[in-house]
Amino acid sequence: MAERDLGQRQARRFAFRNGTLDFLAGWCLGYAQLGGLSPGSAFEAFGRVGRGGASGWVASFGHTLADEQRLAARAHEEGNPRAAAQHDLAVAVAARAQLHFADLEAPETRGTIAAMEESFQRGVAGLGYRLDPVSVPFGAGHLPGYVSAGFASLDVLVVVVGGGDTYREDLFFMGGKGLLDAGYAVAMIDYPGQGTVPYQGLHFGTETVEGLDTALKWLRTQGFAGRFVLLGWSGGGLFTAKYLSLPGHEPVAAWIASTPIVDFATLAEVGMPAILRKRPDGRLASTLLALAGRMSRELDLSLRKYTWQFGPQGIAGALEQARTVGIVDVSALDTPVLALAGASESPEAIRQAKQAYEAVRIRRPGSRHVVFERATGADAHCQVNNLPLATATMLDWLDGLGLTPGPVSG
Amino acid sequence: MAERDLGQRQARRFAFRNGTLDFLAGWCLGYAQLGGLSPGSAFEAFGRVGRGGASGWVASFGHTLADEQRLAARAHEEGNPRAAAQHDLAVAVAARAQLHFADLEAPETRGTIAAMEESFQRGVAGLGYRLDPVSVPFGAGHLPGYVSAGFASLDVLVVVVGGGDTYREDLFFMGGKGLLDAGYAVAMIDYPGQGTVPYQGLHFGTETVEGLDTALKWLRTQGFAGRFVLLGWSGGGLFTAKYLSLPGHEPVAAWIASTPIVDFATLAEVGMPAILRKRPDGRLASTLLALAGRMSRELDLSLRKYTWQFGPQGIAGALEQARTVGIVDVSALDTPVLALAGASESPEAIRQAKQAYEAVRIRRPGSRHVVFERATGADAHCQVNNLPLATATMLDWLDGLGLTPGPVSG
Repeated sequence: MAERDLGQRQARRFAFRNGTLDFLAGWCLGYAQLGGLSPGSAFEAFGRVGRGGASGWVASFGHTLADEQRLAARAHEEGNPRAAAQHDLAVAVAARAQLHFADLEAPETRGTIAAMEESFQRGVAGLGYRLDPVSVPFGAGHLPGYVSAGFASLDVLVVVVGGGDTYREDLFFMGGKGLLDAGYAVAMIDYPGQGTVPYQGLHFGTETVEGLDTALKWLRTQGFAGRFVLLGWSGGGLFTAKYLSLPGHEPVAAWIASTPIVDFATLAEVGMPAILRKRPDGRLASTLLALAGRMSRELDLSLRKYTWQFGPQGIAGALEQARTVGIVDVSALDTPVLALAGASESPEAIRQAKQAYEAVRIRRPGSRHVVFERATGADAHCQVNNLPLATATMLDWLDGLGLTPGPVSG
Repeated sequence: MAERDLGQRQARRFAFRNGTLDFLAGWCLGYAQLGGLSPGSAFEAFGRVGRGGASGWVASFGHTLADEQRLAARAHEEGNPRAAAQHDLAVAVAARAQLHFADLEAPETRGTIAAMEESFQRGVAGLGYRLDPVSVPFGAGHLPGYVSAGFASLDVLVVVVGGGDTYREDLFFMGGKGLLDAGYAVAMIDYPGQGTVPYQGLHFGTETVEGLDTALKWLRTQGFAGRFVLLGWSGGGLFTAKYLSLPGHEPVAAWIASTPIVDFATLAEVGMPAILRKRPDGRLASTLLALAGRMSRELDLSLRKYTWQFGPQGIAGALEQARTVGIVDVSALDTPVLALAGASESPEAIRQAKQAYEAVRIRRPGSRHVVFERATGADAHCQVNNLPLATATMLDWLDGLGLTPGPVSG
């Protein structure tokens, strides 16, 4: 396990000794397989971070962001649309990288988010993808997302659900692009707690799962009459599992998760330093933050971000909630599952993925369980260092289930 | 400039202190943008090299090769064609990586080459590309290559020409894939001195340029009636320049080179250690090899490979030839050029690219000159750390010239 990361997420080192920074470096290189920052640009940025830690990271990717904006503007001006699209997507990824450690309450952060969203939309359009920005009404708020143009007339819609560290733009890299290239329609939506949704006062918890239900129902009101596939990444492996275990959920033809999570409380607790497990009281959050601050500024900032995403109750409330919302009744799961995990993730995550698979396959023998070994390069959390292999594995499985893309029949 | 590299090829460090190894590491990561080994698999291999240098590199990528062969076989067996195709292409890249430092006269090397060729062909077919293996008769020998199926009926054929370190399989990553994705037909052929062609006794020199002429004429005999585009990488920037400067060359609609080379002798000499420039005599080759051996095993092996490619006369003969074949009469160049260079290449390479552009644009104002700055990530030799940006730049330029892909007209 890397030093001072948030948990056990990967086995090897890319560019930094600090585990949190290095996971993000590997994440950044993984996106390079799918557009975004090239290995050259990524290492240019890593080199500028040097020993600067989180603040060095933010400054360096701010530099990259400005460079790529300038390059994109020039390419557009000079009438080079393909080069411009690549730079636009690089702007989006540079902004996204900055956001890992940005102060989400600072006004300038809203500018970074806007740059990410606008450049992402311009970039994917420039590459020929037809994604419509949507806004799903949710109580007094809304859930922002992207949905394939013309999805209503298609037979299969893959709803990609992120986790604790995703904006809807990430979901393009996390399966979205590969699915689109294979002809599938996708919906990439931020639910309560994710992306910019906490700015609306909508946080992780039961409302995250309610958000997913609301989104599926809304997609039906837009005329979609085909079959849903759910694809959950990281925390999305919990949200989709929870949703599919609840009575009255929308029918879903297939469920993919990396990893399916069925007991979030245990997963979180075994990943924590031992000292915290001994203090499951009201002071847990402050203890955790104080300890993280002493261990590493990067860990501290990451935990503060999660606190913000969990709302006023913060991480203490989250761990309380984890014991209710975070427990999934596996006997209620009845959707064919492709349960993915990376061999370098925490043993508890791998165990739960297997548990979900074992529970489902009795009823749904088409289910499949894949643990990506180290040699695949896809062994990290969310397969971030080889997302195309994870996506190919999904596409092969969907084909096997007869969930190939096409117009709705009948 | 990196320590102990073959010349000035890149500005930043990826994974190794040794410049030759590190250029190859960056090359390997660059291919990850286009399939091949993922960043996860690449860093797994780099980690095993450790301080093992060239022999560690060969052993580690041998390990990767065996792993990927096993993973590919399993994916094929289990009926997962998309995952299998990715593993097949990873096998090809792992084999290719091994070949950088392999003993080309050792019998086992032929097995590595066969693995690369077979897995490449299976992989690209699995990804849906239709490339036919071809064999162009050349004197008593033949030039092996891949050509787009159905190219004869298309209006534009891009002939991708590699350099001193390419097999025809490399050319898929070096523009080939991007061109195919954009709808162009491509021809990726090894000329004398390249790939496996030295096994036939065909080496770098005048016959390399003759090979190019022979290939273009042969493509005509296969029914191609459209327009040729030449794309030359590295040494291919010299071969294409030389060819286009000769009277009676086949008509070529556009020329792209990264970088155009018009004076190879000067380029080679300014890139050499000062001591060698003082000894331009018959003992040059042995001096060079002895010195390289003392400097770095990696440099030594790379130079021995070049010696093998240059044939019985070796590098001494090559430098002699460079003063004749390697000088291009720029006033004879009359093909619209896109002259590419990376800002972190040697100043002499950048200068020659500009010289070629300046010479051509007087007659062909549609010509364009792009030096990729560091911020693009495409600043290394052959843009190896951001090949998609170089390819997008080419596609934009070809569009601007009206060389869009389509069926032959009339």
